[in-house]
This record gives sequence, C-alpha cells and structure tokens, in this order.
Amino acid sequence: METIKPRTLSGFMELLPAPQQQMERMMQILRQTYALYGFTPLDTPAIEAAEVLLAKGGGETEKQIYRFSKGDADLALRFDLTVPLAKYVALHYGELTFPFRRYQIGKVYRGERAQRGRFREFYQADIDIIGDGQLDILNEAEIPSIIYQTFTRMGLHRFQIRVNNRKILNGFYAMLGLEEQSGEIMRTVDKLDKIGADKVRAILADDAGLTEQQADEVLRFISITGSNSQVLEALAGYAGQNETFDAGVAELRAVADSLAAFGVPESHFRVDLTIARGLDYYTGTVYETVMLDHPEIGSICSGGRYDNLAGYYTDKKLPGVGISIGLTRLFYVLGEQGYLNPALNTAPADVLILPMTESLAPAISLATALRAEGIRTQLYSEKKKFKAKLSYADKLGIPYAVFLGEDEIAAGRVTVKDLRSGEQTTTTPAAAAEIIRVGLNESGSVIVEPQAR
Amino acid sequence: METIKPRTLSGFMELLPAPQQQMERMMQILRQTYALYGFTPLDTPAIEAAEVLLAKGGGETEKQIYRFSKGDADLALRFDLTVPLAKYVALHYGELTFPFRRYQIGKVYRGERAQRGRFREFYQADIDIIGDGQLDILNEAEIPSIIYQTFTRMGLHRFQIRVNNRKILNGFYAMLGLEEQSGEIMRTVDKLDKIGADKVRAILADDAGLTEQQADEVLRFISITGSNSQVLEALAGYAGQNETFDAGVAELRAVADSLAAFGVPESHFRVDLTIARGLDYYTGTVYETVMLDHPEIGSICSGGRYDNLAGYYTDKKLPGVGISIGLTRLFYVLGEQGYLNPALNTAPADVLILPMTESLAPAISLATALRAEGIRTQLYSEKKKFKAKLSYADKLGIPYAVFLGEDEIAAGRVTVKDLRSGEQTTTTPAAAAEIIRVGLNESGSVIVEPQAR
Repeated sequence: METIKPRTLSGFMELLPAPQQQMERMMQILRQTYALYGFTPLDTPAIEAAEVLLAKGGGETEKQIYRFSKGDADLALRFDLTVPLAKYVALHYGELTFPFRRYQIGKVYRGERAQRGRFREFYQADIDIIGDGQLDILNEAEIPSIIYQTFTRMGLHRFQIRVNNRKILNGFYAMLGLEEQSGEIMRTVDKLDKIGADKVRAILADDAGLTEQQADEVLRFISITGSNSQVLEALAGYAGQNETFDAGVAELRAVADSLAAFGVPESHFRVDLTIARGLDYYTGTVYETVMLDHPEIGSICSGGRYDNLAGYYTDKKLPGVGISIGLTRLFYVLGEQGYLNPALNTAPADVLILPMTESLAPAISLATALRAEGIRTQLYSEKKKFKAKLSYADKLGIPYAVFLGEDEIAAGRVTVKDLRSGEQTTTTPAAAAEIIRVGLNESGSVIVEPQAR
Repeated sequence: METIKPRTLSGFMELLPAPQQQMERMMQILRQTYALYGFTPLDTPAIEAAEVLLAKGGGETEKQIYRFSKGDADLALRFDLTVPLAKYVALHYGELTFPFRRYQIGKVYRGERAQRGRFREFYQADIDIIGDGQLDILNEAEIPSIIYQTFTRMGLHRFQIRVNNRKILNGFYAMLGLEEQSGEIMRTVDKLDKIGADKVRAILADDAGLTEQQADEVLRFISITGSNSQVLEALAGYAGQNETFDAGVAELRAVADSLAAFGVPESHFRVDLTIARGLDYYTGTVYETVMLDHPEIGSICSGGRYDNLAGYYTDKKLPGVGISIGLTRLFYVLGEQGYLNPALNTAPADVLILPMTESLAPAISLATALRAEGIRTQLYSEKKKFKAKLSYADKLGIPYAVFLGEDEIAAGRVTVKDLRSGEQTTTTPAAAAEIIRVGLNESGSVIVEPQAR
C-alpha cells in the first residue's frame, strides 16, 4: 500500500501521553478552582459566522484569522473566547441570570507566523463575570484570589499578581491635561521595564508631545513603588483634583483591603502603577501575573474590568471583569523552564495486573474489584515473557503490579509489588487496594519549582 | 453604535448553563470511567494537513469535510478521531508503549446538510487499544465492561450491548462459496430490522445473485436467536467446516465467557448475528449498544476489532479494538426523550453568601473557608433588595443560601437556609459546611430513565 508521511502541522501542540497527563492535571485544577468560585462552564462552537466573529473589526486579529467558506457560508475559527462570550450573552440575554459568571477552557486559532513557543491552535482558560447594567467592585476584588488559588493548587508559589486601575491612570493624565495622549502614554509607559526611564522620557517628549514638566510628572508618578499601603498612601497625595482618579484609588483600595479575607498573602499581590494592559476596553482594575523567577516570560494570567462587553451586538450595557490564561503557552513555558514535576504519576494506570494462570477469570474479577474502588487498573494479557510484561509497566511508569498465580488464587490472596521501591507483599485483595491507594497520594503537584526540589 | 445581529450557526450545539452542566457531568463520567480501565487521555489538533487527513481517501467523508487554505497550506478540520489516532500512532510509534490504550473526547466536523438532531460540530468520545503486530482477545472481551460501566455510571440502565464477530460472518459466507459477495450480503442483512426478512431475501437473490438455497441458508443463519449460550450452541453446529468461522466462534465464546468476571450482567449483553457494522475495516468482534426503550435511535456506542489501524501511513501492522460514542447526538437524544435528570444540581454554585453588613470581610472570610472545604461558593455583592438576591439564587437553582448579619458575626455563627425545603438553621460555619455537604449528595445521576421516576 502506498503510504503518506504522517505529520502534525507546525504551531500545533500534540503531546505524548505523559506530558498530556500533566496538561490534563492542569485543566482539571482550572475547572475545579473556577467552579469553587461559582463559575459555570460554557462551551461555544469553534466555528462562527465570519460576520459575527469580526463584528468588532480589528486589524491584527483579522489578518491572523482562519476564514473559509462552505457552501455559501462565510465562516471563521474563533481567535479568542471573549468575542464568542459577547455573542453568547447578547444572544441568550433573556435566558441568563446576572451577574453571569462563566468559565471556558477551549481551543482558539490564530494563523500567526510559526515560531518557537508560538501556537496557531492553543487553549485559553477564561473566566468572566458579566453584570446587567452594573457590577459591584467586590467582583474585581475577588479576581486576585482566584488567580492565587489557581496557581498555588498547581504547585506554583513564586509568582505575584500585579494590579492597577485604569481610572487612576486616566484621571492622572486628565490632571495634567493629557486626556488625548493618555493611550499613547500608557503604551509607552508599559515599556518601562524593557527600555528604561530615559527612553520612556524621550518618547513621551518627542512622539507624544509632552512638556519636560509633564514627562517628569508622569515618570515621578509611575515610579511610585513600595508596599501596597505605601503606594496607596502616595496616591492619596493626589486626591481631590480629579473625580475619576479618586474613584480609581477608592476601587484599588477596596481590592487591596479585601485580600486578607480572600486568603491572598500580601507577598503575592502588588499595586503596580505601570500596568495598563494594551486593550482599550479596560476601564477599571487591571491584572497581570508574573513568575518571580522568570519575568521575561511576561504575564501568565491577565485581564481586567471593562464597561461594555458586547456593544457591537446589543444596546444593553454589559460591564464585566475577566481574566485569561494562555494555557498552551503556559504549559510550553513551564516545560521549557523545568517546572513540570517529573515525579507526578503520569501513567495510564495505577496498577497492572499480571495473570499467571490459564484461566483469566480471577484476574478479571480482581480488576473489576479494584476499578470499583476507584483504582485505575489495567489487565496485561499479551503473550510475552514475564520480564517483558514488567518492562511494559516500567516504561509507562505504572507504580504497582499485582501478580495472581495458582497459589494466590487458592489462598484468596494477591501479591502486590511497588515498582518504585521494589517492595512486595502478599495479602488480601482489599489490603492490596489499600496499599495502592495510600501509595498513590505521594506523587505531588503538577508543578514543582526547580529551586524547591 | 451599529450592531450586528448575534447568532450561532445552525448545526452547532450551544447550550445554556444548566444543560451545559449536564453535558459536563457526562464528560466527567466518560473521563473517569475510561481512566479506570487504564486508558490515557490524548488531545490532537482539530486542524490537520488535508493530504494527511485524507490519506485514506473515501467518498462521503471527503464531500463533508471542512477544507481551506491559509497561506500555501492546504488544511482540513478532522471529521473523526480515528484518522488522527492513526496519524499519531504512526508518527510517534517509537515513543509509544504497546498495547497503547488511549481515550479522546474531542470535537469533530462534518459539513452535512443541517437537519434536526444532526450536528456539523460534535463531540466524539473514543477509546482504542492498539497492539504492535498482535493484540490479545482479552482486549476485545473487556470492551463490553467499559460500555456497561460508562452508561450505568451515567444512570442509564435499560440498554443492551449487542455483539458479533466478523470472522463468523466471513467464515459462514465462505462456507456457502459467497466470499466475493460477503460485503454486499452484510450490508443487506444489516437492514433486516428495517425492511424485514422477505425484502432481504429478495435483494439477496436479485441484486447479490444468491441462489434460493443460499439465501435461505443466510436467513436461517441470521435468525439464530436466544440466550447467549443458545446462540453459541447453534453456532457449534457449523463447526469444522471453515477455519475462520471456528476462530470467530472461539473469540465470541471468549468474550461471552468473561462477562461475569468483568461485572457485566447477562441481561445487558446479547450475541446478535445480524450485526456487521458497515465499515470494511472491522475484522473480529463488533459492538453496538441500543437503548431498549428507544431502538429507533440506533446504536449509541459502537465499534469493533480491526487488523490495521494505519496502513495508509506506515508499514507497521497495528491491530486494535475501539469504540466510539457520538456524545453530542447522544446528549441531544437524551434531552429529547426526557432522560436528563431535572433534579441534578446544575447551579453554578452550591451556596450563595448574602452579606448583610457594611463590612464585607466576615462574608469574604466565610466564602474563603467554604471554598477551602471544596464547597462551590458565590458571594452576592450587588446592591439589590433582599428579595432580588434570593431570587437570583432561586433562578440559578443554587441549593443553599447563607446569611451573615451583625448578630451572627458577633456570635461567630452563620444562618444557612436550604432553598429547596425552606429549612433554616443558625449554627457554626463548620456545621453549616457539613449541612451543605450532606445535602449536596442527594441530587442523583445525570440520566434518570423516565419510567424510573
């Protein structure tokens, strides 16, 4: 038979079984954590009418989109989960209850130029809370807690959530009479870490047309640092000059003040006045999350408050707050940096049963009993030498093997072997199940920070 | 702002939050059950090179495929999970350990003519066991147990797994000298339920060119029915005439004999000689699963043994056995027939906390504590009247509300209300968590058969 060379497209992640198990573990933690905060899972189509998906317009995105026709339909693959959410909420408005809290973990598509660590198909893991006309600040205050829980449950600890409020920035630029240039200033200031203060000052003066004094004011402002309370105190010094500014400071204070009750340690949260987030539609609190030992990776979880989710579909005012994790890229980066726990149990089964007798009925019954106890069990029935059978378990990292020979069957016992320690015990099936169950708890979290090993 | 009418394409399932929770429950059961049997999760791209995806060729499928180009790449959306599996195993052959057991739950795409209950984007939930050169019959014997566990864990009980073996059919037709026509005969016999014995006989004689005696033999054969042991006994009457036939009977007997040890009741398994499965590539055991009260729906879980998974990609011989559930269609059908349990907890949260004080810190702390206990908790912070807050919980079906007023906070207590029964208790936070946890266990399985209510 003529064969065709099998291949997977570049820019598409396709994992081998062990890393796929790690990825599944991360997804499971995301689903569980998001659900704990009262978010409901959503699933929208990967294909939408191109007209609907591109309602908002937008340059870069439109170039990257996978667009095609089928019959006379003009179709496109979604490039994020926010536009489909806007469509969903606008379309099903009458059937939803607000505030509407949803999470979605799904694949999105962008036909970018392929390069290392960039993906054309990737998972986003998003949560959003959508209000009907209004949305209380407490929803913004809750977000850092969700980010904190998500990453700590995965085993990541050395990270920090950086928070700012767009009202503070907008209000501050208004004080300086720079409303018009505020977008340009924010984009420039955003580069502070990369290009340094002098270059920022130069761009502000030369390109944005700020006076020397205005540029100094901007740089003085964004260099306010210190503990959260120190920054908030410094901000209080600007109070009373601009209503938007004051509202932003009050919101930021509300977010910072509720951290302790939400279980977020002070160490994992920092007010950072340089954070603006590029997207124009954020209007309140904005969030970024950085790995302390890998700031070069950029934010691993970002988002913010917006005032109008779905203006291009509906006249209803739908304010919201949301965050997004670029899961595929995060997984790739964690692997590259050695953060994925090699001790995690990634085997397809917890135990491999090796029948040693002609009749397989006792081995099958044992498998059925172990599965009923929730233990992932595989029966090995291929005609191979004993050594090859054990090598199968070994290659897959299956932690336990159970041998079932004539003697064991006659005595109503089984021999269970811990393949990591080599320890072997002959005991009752129930006791064997208990040995396996206890031993499985030792494999740890999906992420282990290299310095913690 | 000019708005564009939001819509979802026809043939694409987009669920409201409550049914989406039911769907998630089904997926969770699938993942858990497949994992219990030692299958590892896989995730392959939805987009493949068209050349790779269409390597096998094939008429109907090719017409339905979503195919498009991006730059100079000729791309297509996968139309099933089997071709991507074949690609995966051929591509990663050297890095896999055989037998390779994988499950995959993923969306596939077919641009069919839209009609009620037909979907263009739908989930398939597949398992396959792939051997390297050979694969023991025990793997085929295990499949009915997986099907049985999957559906009973969902709450479906009135179903039956119907099993046959292609070797028996091929061997039998060889006995009659009808090897050449065996494909045509099987396709005709497959219609027995729909068109009746007389029409089958007519087609066999007129179109397939069988003699009257041959047609009688075929009809006599496929009308062998009764208990599994009765059918196996009747098959024994044909023994010794054809090797393939005898091998098939031995395999079928091995599958039937291991049912009890695998925990499958006799009532849920039937040897059925009329089952052939359309696909040419099945070579051994074949499976269908029917809902006893809705045979008109057809098989809800089908598959079989094949000898060569990936002949169009590799010279390696990769025999396997697999089954597939058309999950989106199954979910649709279950909903239509009233099988989805209306009492299932589909709320986004288990408890809604209603703060009654100015300071929100005690309410937030309580939410943090309940979440740490694994209880899905939502804080309600919108400025609404008390009645509107309770109505929010009611509309979403959130089973519990917790009130936290000055008196409760001072006394270190909370008031928990069961919104279904109206029962209200003021107690410690720990006792409230226990009340909620116990109460949540009562909501039942995702499927409840109408006659069982």
